[in-house]
Amino acid sequence: MRIEKLREFIAEKELDGALITGKENLFYFTGSSPVLGGYLVVTPDDAVFLVPELEYEEARETSKVPVEKFKTGKDLYERLSSFKLGKLGIEGRTSFSTIQTLKEKAGVNDFATVDDVIKDLRIIKTKEELEVIEAACRIADMAMMAALEEISEGRREREIAAKMEYVMKMNGAEKPAFDTIIASGWRSALPHGIASDKRIEKGDLVVIDEGALYRHYHSDMTRTIVVGSPNEKQREIYEIVLEAQKKGVEAARPGMTAKELDTIVRDVIAEYGYGDYFIHSTGHGVGLQIHEWPRVSQQDETVLKPGMVITVEPGIYIPKFGGVRIEDTIVITENGAKRLTKTERELI
Amino acid sequence: MRIEKLREFIAEKELDGALITGKENLFYFTGSSPVLGGYLVVTPDDAVFLVPELEYEEARETSKVPVEKFKTGKDLYERLSSFKLGKLGIEGRTSFSTIQTLKEKAGVNDFATVDDVIKDLRIIKTKEELEVIEAACRIADMAMMAALEEISEGRREREIAAKMEYVMKMNGAEKPAFDTIIASGWRSALPHGIASDKRIEKGDLVVIDEGALYRHYHSDMTRTIVVGSPNEKQREIYEIVLEAQKKGVEAARPGMTAKELDTIVRDVIAEYGYGDYFIHSTGHGVGLQIHEWPRVSQQDETVLKPGMVITVEPGIYIPKFGGVRIEDTIVITENGAKRLTKTERELI
Repeated sequence: MRIEKLREFIAEKELDGALITGKENLFYFTGSSPVLGGYLVVTPDDAVFLVPELEYEEARETSKVPVEKFKTGKDLYERLSSFKLGKLGIEGRTSFSTIQTLKEKAGVNDFATVDDVIKDLRIIKTKEELEVIEAACRIADMAMMAALEEISEGRREREIAAKMEYVMKMNGAEKPAFDTIIASGWRSALPHGIASDKRIEKGDLVVIDEGALYRHYHSDMTRTIVVGSPNEKQREIYEIVLEAQKKGVEAARPGMTAKELDTIVRDVIAEYGYGDYFIHSTGHGVGLQIHEWPRVSQQDETVLKPGMVITVEPGIYIPKFGGVRIEDTIVITENGAKRLTKTERELI
Repeated sequence: MRIEKLREFIAEKELDGALITGKENLFYFTGSSPVLGGYLVVTPDDAVFLVPELEYEEARETSKVPVEKFKTGKDLYERLSSFKLGKLGIEGRTSFSTIQTLKEKAGVNDFATVDDVIKDLRIIKTKEELEVIEAACRIADMAMMAALEEISEGRREREIAAKMEYVMKMNGAEKPAFDTIIASGWRSALPHGIASDKRIEKGDLVVIDEGALYRHYHSDMTRTIVVGSPNEKQREIYEIVLEAQKKGVEAARPGMTAKELDTIVRDVIAEYGYGDYFIHSTGHGVGLQIHEWPRVSQQDETVLKPGMVITVEPGIYIPKFGGVRIEDTIVITENGAKRLTKTERELI
């Protein structure tokens, strides 16, 4: 089905074929994920997955598309030439070097991207994909529980992240979905405060943003706590972010646009006068990549549909003072949305 | 100095400037590493590091090159246009999408890669870089010690990797240098046997290939053990790989080519009749990337020079039976080479 959709796009754009090289797209179309990568060629009447010799046996066992091996780059480009790919569909991130080599050694003379059809396919998750994403979210919940247990005055941010990532891996994750963020005190005002050697102090806001990569799929969740008792201002911004996040999760449903959802969340924060401190978009799609479609932002008018998986993650960041972000991964359902990350949100 | 070398290349190739976007190259040239990336523009008489607004404060504190912020893609490409970059030097991995946008919105009409000058710079490590790589290698030694303590009959490969990566992070590593390989029993015959849910059994060969990412630099090391007592064949191939690896480390010196070093190592294994089972090259450069220049292979005639950091990692892989690989990260010195990973090699 996936290959068929790609073929329809090839026909529609009058391409001679498509070449897929991005790792998660290779997995998406073939079911295989060679460490050394590979080259999936799809033409109107053929589909072949070319892999380095070292990967041949494993790819043959896992790939739904017929597999061939190549020994050298010369072999590879000779085989590619044989498909007569004059006008070739490629992924937008295909490198300049690869494009030059395709021109020089495989006779390609025109390129177009196939990103749109890949987006249209991947943006709606199948039942099987949703099961894996739910499992990735359960692992993220376990890691968050570990964080909440471990965080205390005097511990270094990096130690907390080390323990969380250990819990993820012991529970089946391949690795963290991204560099785990533990941002305490003044660092909590940085939206991307990757765990550092800073020690956590009493009274610190601590933003914990983490997720697991499980069977190629990602999860993403943020919680914020205060070490000890929150002061008035910390509690105030926490309550605002919590209200905005809950309102977003409750409002999300099929038929609305990603932009509309962003507006609903953004308005809550703006009404309390903190609009200028919510310095990023409300969320993003999650799947084979940690950041994919749709973007829950003012720039994305994608209509939400059942099977889309997105984050809802408002935040308020006050330079030097600190920040709060609360985030869940959710799936759009037939009549609303369901939280896939389930850790309690009332933490302050 | 680094920017100056890039400028000399720009002049030599008659380019209007160069645009650097690869994360480790941005770090190499600016000293800064924004999570959301950035755009370093170097022209004959200017150098500016353009970063997203969210990254501005942090980049300004860390960058050796003047920093400017942009709000939107439109701002970014308008600013890029102002440099009049008709013929632009780019990294070979620059994406098709970026190239299209540069053509359409920044007036670029010709591209050439600057990969050669970046390679020439980065292939020789400075004293400061070597100190960081040595520290990354010490962390790899600690993780290997943890692996040797943890591995026992009945444990899952992934549990061992989880513990190793925990040790890395607790000792200051940002993360593993690559997906940790724990390949036991029949899986040890896979050169890239990333830790799986397989349980380790008595009598298994176990290949442990790991490294740490520390302050942007990588380390890389492999050891192989047997759980319990090795049989005759296991001992035989272990001794051959050990002899080849030691001979390679002892032979490595300035003035010889990477290919010559590969031949010395390969010949040891071939003389014992296992040449067909050594199915990869002898090694690779290590630095800001886990695999960089030179390649210690039959295809790379780079002359070794002091300050180059490479791996020496022969292996023998016998399908279904198992495999052995032994690897150190080494640095080429004035008159030979020095091992930077120091875990004992006599483990069987």
